Amino acid sequence: MGDRPNEQTGLAGKAPAAAHEQRLRLEQQIRFVLELDKLKGIVRRSWLLGEERRENSAEHSWHLAMMAIILAEYANEPFDLPHALKLLLVHDVVEIDAGDTYCYDDQANGDKEEREHRAAERIFGLLPEEQAREAHDLWLEFEHRETPEARFANAVDRMQPLLLNFHTDGRSWLEHDIARHQVLERNGTIEDGSLELWRYTSALIDEAVERGWLKL
Amino acid sequence: MGDRPNEQTGLAGKAPAAAHEQRLRLEQQIRFVLELDKLKGIVRRSWLLGEERRENSAEHSWHLAMMAIILAEYANEPFDLPHALKLLLVHDVVEIDAGDTYCYDDQANGDKEEREHRAAERIFGLLPEEQAREAHDLWLEFEHRETPEARFANAVDRMQPLLLNFHTDGRSWLEHDIARHQVLERNGTIEDGSLELWRYTSALIDEAVERGWLKL
Repeated sequence: MGDRPNEQTGLAGKAPAAAHEQRLRLEQQIRFVLELDKLKGIVRRSWLLGEERRENSAEHSWHLAMMAIILAEYANEPFDLPHALKLLLVHDVVEIDAGDTYCYDDQANGDKEEREHRAAERIFGLLPEEQAREAHDLWLEFEHRETPEARFANAVDRMQPLLLNFHTDGRSWLEHDIARHQVLERNGTIEDGSLELWRYTSALIDEAVERGWLKL
Repeated sequence: MGDRPNEQTGLAGKAPAAAHEQRLRLEQQIRFVLELDKLKGIVRRSWLLGEERRENSAEHSWHLAMMAIILAEYANEPFDLPHALKLLLVHDVVEIDAGDTYCYDDQANGDKEEREHRAAERIFGLLPEEQAREAHDLWLEFEHRETPEARFANAVDRMQPLLLNFHTDGRSWLEHDIARHQVLERNGTIEDGSLELWRYTSALIDEAVERGWLKL
């Protein structure tokens, strides 16, 4: 996806059949680009720092990509930043159909995998075949957390809502009556991507408990 | 920015002074990450396709990065996609202070450059020095459009609002009484990044005129 060698384009010089195929390809891609717009309407639980509204998954994905760029030096293992950026940019796209599943909602998490798999089939399936496969693979790689890139990307994805929660006085934690052990269980995977970032966030969690934003 | 070789972190093994410096560095970076949240509150002119609200600059930046990945094959010249992604992710950050300047507002565009330079100084200045410099350079590179990456990134940045406008029945064009020649002047630079994408968008512009969404 995007790694194909660049072609000098220009339909004028191509045979009519090739030009037609090329046109269909671009139309498929634009259809996907338009579909992506819907991610801006998928609302998460985290509150923004300066706006009286919750975060959506598109702006969240941008924030994660920026965090990966800025905080790359803290990864536990050498990793390929551009690949991690692709993982982060793509990983929430399935929410267009499957919705954002609140990480502390056990019931919704029960069928999350199935819902997201169906979503991936439909949404990535809008793309030309080889791009669909690549996008699907990126999403699965992120989910499986088995590569250094996926581990770091997941660490950033877990750390960001924690930052937002902390700096809105625990607003979303308090709304959902969340306890320290839930946050620790959920976010211990930050450690797999970055010991250093985990050290930083676990101190925030302790402080959140002290301030009464998280139950003991 | 993010291109430094990974270090095995772990403050425990470091001398106290180094550990303190490292802690300050991370705190600076987190301060910048929190500042970035404000881009989600910068509202652009484009209407979203499925939501009754305008787009913000953070979700816009995510959408552009995804477009660059999907449409990379249409660039006029070979280019480095990861670098283009960084340009797109960073290029609107200055709007946190400078606001989004509507491209057809001549008066606001008069002092845009000065406002954005001040913004870049302050916002990127939150980062550790070498990261601040890199972020600043990425922003300038995008603005100057002198590299293949910046040309393609700018093409995508111009094409996206045009897609949103077209698929909301010209809503933002009609609100601001925009004429065909304004759109052509503004968006001719798509051609510098991608002849193929320009062919596609200029057909949309013609159709928008036919449908009465753009004045002749």
